Amino acid sequence: MAGMEIELKEMLSDLDNLQRSLSDPSSQASLIKMRSRVENLTALVNSGQGRRSKVKDMSAEVVDSNPYSRLMALQRMGIVDNYERIRDFSVAIVGIGGVGSVAAEMLTRCGIGRLLLYDYDKVELANMNRLFFRPEQCGMTKTDAAVQTLSDINPDVVLESYTLNITTVQGFETFMASLTNKANSLSKDSTGVDLVLSCVDNYEARMVVNQACNELKQTWMESGVSEDAVSGHIQLLIPGETACFACAPPLVVASGVDERTLKREGVCAASLPTTMGVVAGLLVQNTLKYLLKFGQVSPYLGYNALKDYFPTMQMRPNPQCSNAACLERQEEYKLTKPERDAAAKAKMEEEALTVTESAIHLDNEWNICVVDDDEQDKKDAQTRDVLPEGLVHELPTADEYQRLTAQEEAVNSADDLEELKRQLEALNAD
Amino acid sequence: MAGMEIELKEMLSDLDNLQRSLSDPSSQASLIKMRSRVENLTALVNSGQGRRSKVKDMSAEVVDSNPYSRLMALQRMGIVDNYERIRDFSVAIVGIGGVGSVAAEMLTRCGIGRLLLYDYDKVELANMNRLFFRPEQCGMTKTDAAVQTLSDINPDVVLESYTLNITTVQGFETFMASLTNKANSLSKDSTGVDLVLSCVDNYEARMVVNQACNELKQTWMESGVSEDAVSGHIQLLIPGETACFACAPPLVVASGVDERTLKREGVCAASLPTTMGVVAGLLVQNTLKYLLKFGQVSPYLGYNALKDYFPTMQMRPNPQCSNAACLERQEEYKLTKPERDAAAKAKMEEEALTVTESAIHLDNEWNICVVDDDEQDKKDAQTRDVLPEGLVHELPTADEYQRLTAQEEAVNSADDLEELKRQLEALNAD
Repeated sequence: MAGMEIELKEMLSDLDNLQRSLSDPSSQASLIKMRSRVENLTALVNSGQGRRSKVKDMSAEVVDSNPYSRLMALQRMGIVDNYERIRDFSVAIVGIGGVGSVAAEMLTRCGIGRLLLYDYDKVELANMNRLFFRPEQCGMTKTDAAVQTLSDINPDVVLESYTLNITTVQGFETFMASLTNKANSLSKDSTGVDLVLSCVDNYEARMVVNQACNELKQTWMESGVSEDAVSGHIQLLIPGETACFACAPPLVVASGVDERTLKREGVCAASLPTTMGVVAGLLVQNTLKYLLKFGQVSPYLGYNALKDYFPTMQMRPNPQCSNAACLERQEEYKLTKPERDAAAKAKMEEEALTVTESAIHLDNEWNICVVDDDEQDKKDAQTRDVLPEGLVHELPTADEYQRLTAQEEAVNSADDLEELKRQLEALNAD
Repeated sequence: MAGMEIELKEMLSDLDNLQRSLSDPSSQASLIKMRSRVENLTALVNSGQGRRSKVKDMSAEVVDSNPYSRLMALQRMGIVDNYERIRDFSVAIVGIGGVGSVAAEMLTRCGIGRLLLYDYDKVELANMNRLFFRPEQCGMTKTDAAVQTLSDINPDVVLESYTLNITTVQGFETFMASLTNKANSLSKDSTGVDLVLSCVDNYEARMVVNQACNELKQTWMESGVSEDAVSGHIQLLIPGETACFACAPPLVVASGVDERTLKREGVCAASLPTTMGVVAGLLVQNTLKYLLKFGQVSPYLGYNALKDYFPTMQMRPNPQCSNAACLERQEEYKLTKPERDAAAKAKMEEEALTVTESAIHLDNEWNICVVDDDEQDKKDAQTRDVLPEGLVHELPTADEYQRLTAQEEAVNSADDLEELKRQLEALNAD
């Protein structure tokens, strides 16, 4: 639309020049008519834009023209202590697909301070069965299309877009640099970003986000939707404190569908705007609870759409994790145990003194409790093998992954049953 | 955009006329420059439109240009037997606000056959904290803005929009007529619409939808989000078979927030795009499961965002319901009991013969079982008073509602505590 405004301005000056050089009345009448057409067009372009102006301070005033009245009402309702703090936070979203784009729109409409968007893909008609992108954006990069839509929705949000693939060497470097760029950060406490949301659709990209966050001691949230479109999950990962993505095989919510029909190379994954919208909603809700400190932040939440079943669980780090940065973070976390114990003790004593009317605003939202480390380790060892009903491991452990994918690739390349049978026999003979 | 195209065409003909009447070379050069500007503008307008053309048949072909490939993949994955059937269905959405608009977009992107949209309200900046509407649509009716956005997203969907208030006498008449208009229905089996989704934000409008659906024997789904923005629910209502909206006081998911801060006249309700997006996603997911016959359709599903808790329950009709049409439907349902029993028996016998590998595609999705009516009534009487953990009644029974709202209004009109105290004393003295 900016291009149209420039063209129209230039056209007015062309008309001015022409009007000066011509003198006959009929030409003058033509030029006046054309001038009024250009003015009409300018008005149409401006009305089509209708962008709202920036808002300096979030107001709680209850008027139709206030885009933040229904959010600031969360304070009056006693849900959030200080909603306006949301403007201090920077959130990075990796993957602007069916989940990431909706998560970005939700955070934009909530008035988040700054959003960093990462994707290398382009918008296609095949993406139109999910929310957010519009058919007229086909061919644009997802990052450009997202910036276009989001800046129209809320010009108060600072948008940074990175059209790159984080799994490449150069992409990873830019990714790391952008996450730690203090110059762009909105709050002086922040080391760059306050939270990373992974909304990618493959294991490799998740492992890259995991590596970056383990190295940067960066808390992040994982999200995923199954290839049959009817289950999904979100997961909170705090390096050293919770399991990292390499600590245990990734969990998926069992959909009841034969797993053999999934995960085949070249098979087009199914997707639904409903499942992706629900997962994006749960992810951003967890983000708001984490950033604005209300409710209970979920460590893991699954969604089985066929049964409307939502399993939850907690995962502690694996002391034998294959990720070196994770092991470092685990050591650091152990070293801060005396501090955490003292804080927990002080908190318990404080609570014993003051009457707490509601259990909602507990600061200790991670349910950290003073237990002996050995005892906890024993408990972990038990729980690591026992999953809640409806949850299954998506993949074997990270160590085994590479060996198995090599086998899988061999199997997948089989064109017919005979070939497959031969290959299986060969594998068994090893 | 159509207006701009016309203006630009007219401008080209103006330039042609001027070019013919003028002969000096400098004017000619000016006119050529202006012509190229108009051509640029036309190209910009056309690229800005980029509407996709209609698609005659849903194809499963896996190409980037196929807007339905990821939906048709649900068949290949074994989730849905016949996805394309979605084009035969008509769904009515009452209330195009934070939940209804997102539900409409999801169904549009899923390629639903026909959508009927009802709302009387206009788009305001104060709605921008929820998904769907854009700032440039402020001042438009919600129905007009929705039709604009939805027809751009998927021109295959037949959209009917009704800018009216269903709680007025005339609005109710138009509402009833539109639901039963067989002429517009897409399938010869249908009596008009296949499902009504209630996405309104008040008790009165829900009771009107309830009345209409009880009279028309129309299955519908209810949805709601609490005024503190952190809980919501969806509910399936089949006249005569399940509880109607007047059978029991409406249920809300307890958020743990002091209920006294809610439901006060004049208090601006809080809202979040996350909660509304999740509720819309669960509602449309239930709609897809109901229409396309997959998974288990949820009779009631709550969402507590603070705890990520999702209570479920079933509600049978109340034989003492205050709604006369509901009682008629209950009688009719009782009369068809022998048929249902025979069908259930036949089904059980069939299942005993055939090996069923998966429990997903059970036709008997309402969990109807052959039990003695008296026994079931006893069980209902017990369960009606016992609610699952986390669910509370939002209002007293429909009978008591009118008396209590009169009292409440008296209390709400109190300007200060003194006045409130006097009124409470007067009420107690009754």
